[in-house]
Amino acid sequence: MTQPPITPLSYEQAGVQYDLIDPLKIAAQRAAAATGAHLAARGFGEVAASRGESAYVVDVGPFYVASIVECLGSKALVADEMQRLTGRSDYAGIAQDTIAMAVNDLITVGATPLVVQAYWAAGGSDWFADAARAQALVAGWKAACDHCGVAWGGGETPALAGIVEAGRIDLAASCTGLVNPKERLSLGERLAPGDAIVLLASSGIHANGLSLARKLAERLPQGYLTEIAPGLGYGRALLAPTTLYAPVTEALWARGIRVHYAANITGHGWRKLLRHPKPLGYRIHTVPPVPPVLRFIADQAGHDAAEAYGTLNMGAGFALFVGAADAERTVAVARECGVAAWVAGAVEAGAKRLVIEPLGVEYGGESLALR
Amino acid sequence: MTQPPITPLSYEQAGVQYDLIDPLKIAAQRAAAATGAHLAARGFGEVAASRGESAYVVDVGPFYVASIVECLGSKALVADEMQRLTGRSDYAGIAQDTIAMAVNDLITVGATPLVVQAYWAAGGSDWFADAARAQALVAGWKAACDHCGVAWGGGETPALAGIVEAGRIDLAASCTGLVNPKERLSLGERLAPGDAIVLLASSGIHANGLSLARKLAERLPQGYLTEIAPGLGYGRALLAPTTLYAPVTEALWARGIRVHYAANITGHGWRKLLRHPKPLGYRIHTVPPVPPVLRFIADQAGHDAAEAYGTLNMGAGFALFVGAADAERTVAVARECGVAAWVAGAVEAGAKRLVIEPLGVEYGGESLALR
Repeated sequence: MTQPPITPLSYEQAGVQYDLIDPLKIAAQRAAAATGAHLAARGFGEVAASRGESAYVVDVGPFYVASIVECLGSKALVADEMQRLTGRSDYAGIAQDTIAMAVNDLITVGATPLVVQAYWAAGGSDWFADAARAQALVAGWKAACDHCGVAWGGGETPALAGIVEAGRIDLAASCTGLVNPKERLSLGERLAPGDAIVLLASSGIHANGLSLARKLAERLPQGYLTEIAPGLGYGRALLAPTTLYAPVTEALWARGIRVHYAANITGHGWRKLLRHPKPLGYRIHTVPPVPPVLRFIADQAGHDAAEAYGTLNMGAGFALFVGAADAERTVAVARECGVAAWVAGAVEAGAKRLVIEPLGVEYGGESLALR
Repeated sequence: MTQPPITPLSYEQAGVQYDLIDPLKIAAQRAAAATGAHLAARGFGEVAASRGESAYVVDVGPFYVASIVECLGSKALVADEMQRLTGRSDYAGIAQDTIAMAVNDLITVGATPLVVQAYWAAGGSDWFADAARAQALVAGWKAACDHCGVAWGGGETPALAGIVEAGRIDLAASCTGLVNPKERLSLGERLAPGDAIVLLASSGIHANGLSLARKLAERLPQGYLTEIAPGLGYGRALLAPTTLYAPVTEALWARGIRVHYAANITGHGWRKLLRHPKPLGYRIHTVPPVPPVLRFIADQAGHDAAEAYGTLNMGAGFALFVGAADAERTVAVARECGVAAWVAGAVEAGAKRLVIEPLGVEYGGESLALR
C-alpha cells in the first residue's frame, strides 16, 4: 500500500461549493413551500412536516403518497475510468447506486416504494452503442428494482449532446411510494429522548463523497489501481454498490416494529443524524467498523475524525430511531435481511447535538443546515 | 427575412440517432415490464395498458397513481445562446417547458398532477452564481406549478462537473398524480370509430425538435437574431414556453366531459396521434394555423408536409379523443382555459393510419414504433 505524503483535502476543495448553490436552494424551498396549498383544491393536503425531509408527502385520504427525484452524482465517472483501465463495465452497480439514492431517501418517511422511473441522459446517442455497458445498466436497474420489490415504470433516455459531456451519462431516478397504513409515517413525531439509534451498515462510500474520492485518485501514483487492502483496489472498492435498505424497513413494519424516524446517511455524513428539527441530542456509544475504502479516503485526505464522520458515512449508511424496547429486535431484523446493524446510541433531551463518544467528536445543531 | 439556399436537414441528421438508442430502450422496456409483478406483493397491481403510454399507472385501490420523469432536452442551449446575445435570461420560460414535458405527459392517462419534483443538474456550482438566471428558473418553476395547481415537492440541484458541461444545466421533472375517480382513466379503452379528434394549440416548437432548430440556426447568417416574422426573431420565437394543458383536462372533467384518450404531441410530431395500439384510423379534416417559427423551420429544413408534420407539432400540441357529441364543448372548454382548439377530425375503423386530408399526407401504423 503506497503512502504518499498527505496534503489535507476538504470536500469543498474537491469542487463542490455549497455557498453558490445554497441561495438558489433557499429561494427554491421558499417558492416550493408556497405551492403546497394547491393540494387543497384537489381535496388533499401536504404533510407540512415532510418539507425539508428526504421525501415529500401528500395526504390523499386513505394513505399518504411520497415522491422524490434523486441524482447519482459523479460516481459514474469512477466506473468510466475503471472501464478504461480494466475493460469491465460496472454499470450494473451504478444502476443500483442510482436507485438506492432515490429509494433510501423515500423510505425514511415510512413509505413503501412502489414505482421507480429511470432518467438516463447521455452525452450523445453513441453512449448507447457500447452494448455491454448499456445491458449492464439495464440488468442492474432491474435487479435493484427486484431487490426492493418496486415496479420499474419507465423513464427517459435522452441524448443530450452539448449539455451532457460526450461519453458521459447523467443518471437519476424518481420514486413514488405509499405510506400505508398512515400510522407508518415516520417524520419524527414520535422521536423522543430514550429512543435507540440503530445504525445499518454501508457497503462503502455509497454515492456520496465521490468528488473527494476522485480528487484523491488523481494524487495517487497508481490512481484507482492503488491497493488499499490485500487484493482490493481503490477503484474497485469505490464501486461497491450502495446498500438498498427498503427490505429492512418493510420487514420492520411486517414484524410490528414502528420506526420513529429514519435518516439516510448521505452528504454531510453522520451530521445527517441531526436532520430532525427537534431540539434533541444524539449520543453514540458504538461505532460500526469502518470500510477500508472510507478509512483510506479519510487518511489520504488528512481528515480527523470530526471531518471524516461529518463528510462520509464511515460504515453507517442508514439510521433508524426506534423505541428502546425495539432496539435489539431491529438489529435482528436488519441482519435477517442481510444488512449488518448495531444499537449505536440513544436520543437524549437537551440541546441539539451529536456526540460520538468513542471518537470524542461532537457536532452542534448548527452544523447541518438543510432547511 | 433572409432566404439562404435550402439544403434539406432531417431530424436524424440534426444529431439524434434513434437506431443507437432503440436497442437499449427495447431491453429496458422488457426488463421494466417484468417488474410490474412486484406490486402484487403490496396488494396492488399495475395497469398493464399504461406500459408504453406516456405515464405509468398503478392501481392502489381507491384510485390510480400515475408517475413519470421527463427531460427538457436541449432547449436550454437556445436560452443560453440568447442570453449571450441579448443579456436577458429566458430561464423562467425554460422552467415552464420542463414542467410541461412532465405534466403534459402525465395528464394523458387521465391523472390530475399533484406533485412535481425538480431535477436541476448543473455543470458546476458556478452555474448558480448567475443570480438573475437562477431566480428566473425558480420563479418560472413556481409559476408553472401555480398554473397547473400542482405542489412543488422539492428536488435535486447537483453540481455535476465532468458529467454536465461547464456552464450548462440538465433539467428534468418528475410528476406524480392521481386518477381520481378511477373512471377518469383515459388509456383508450373507450377509444372507438366515430370519436372526434380535438387538437389544442401549441405555442410554437415547445420542447421537441430543438436539435433540428439549433442546427438550422448555425446555417443562418444572423443565427437566432434572424427575423422570421415582422418584429419576431428566430431565437425569441423558439423560446415561447410550452403550453401547459393540465387546466384543460381538469376543466373537461369538471364539466362532465370524458376524454377517451389523449396524446401529447412531442417527438415524432403528429405521428403521436397513432400512439394507441388499437387498429384505428385517424382522419384529419382541419389543420390548425402553423406558428411562424414552425413554418420557418420546415421551410429552412426543406421538409415537405409529411416530414414536417411527422417531426414537429405544427401548431397542435395536444390531442384529445372524445365522443363526437362532446367535440364542440371540448373546444369551448379549452378556449375558456385560454387554449385555442379545433375539432380537427375523427377516428375511423380500419387499418391503423393517420390521414391529414388538407395536406394530402398519410402515415401508416408502422411509422410510430414506441412499444
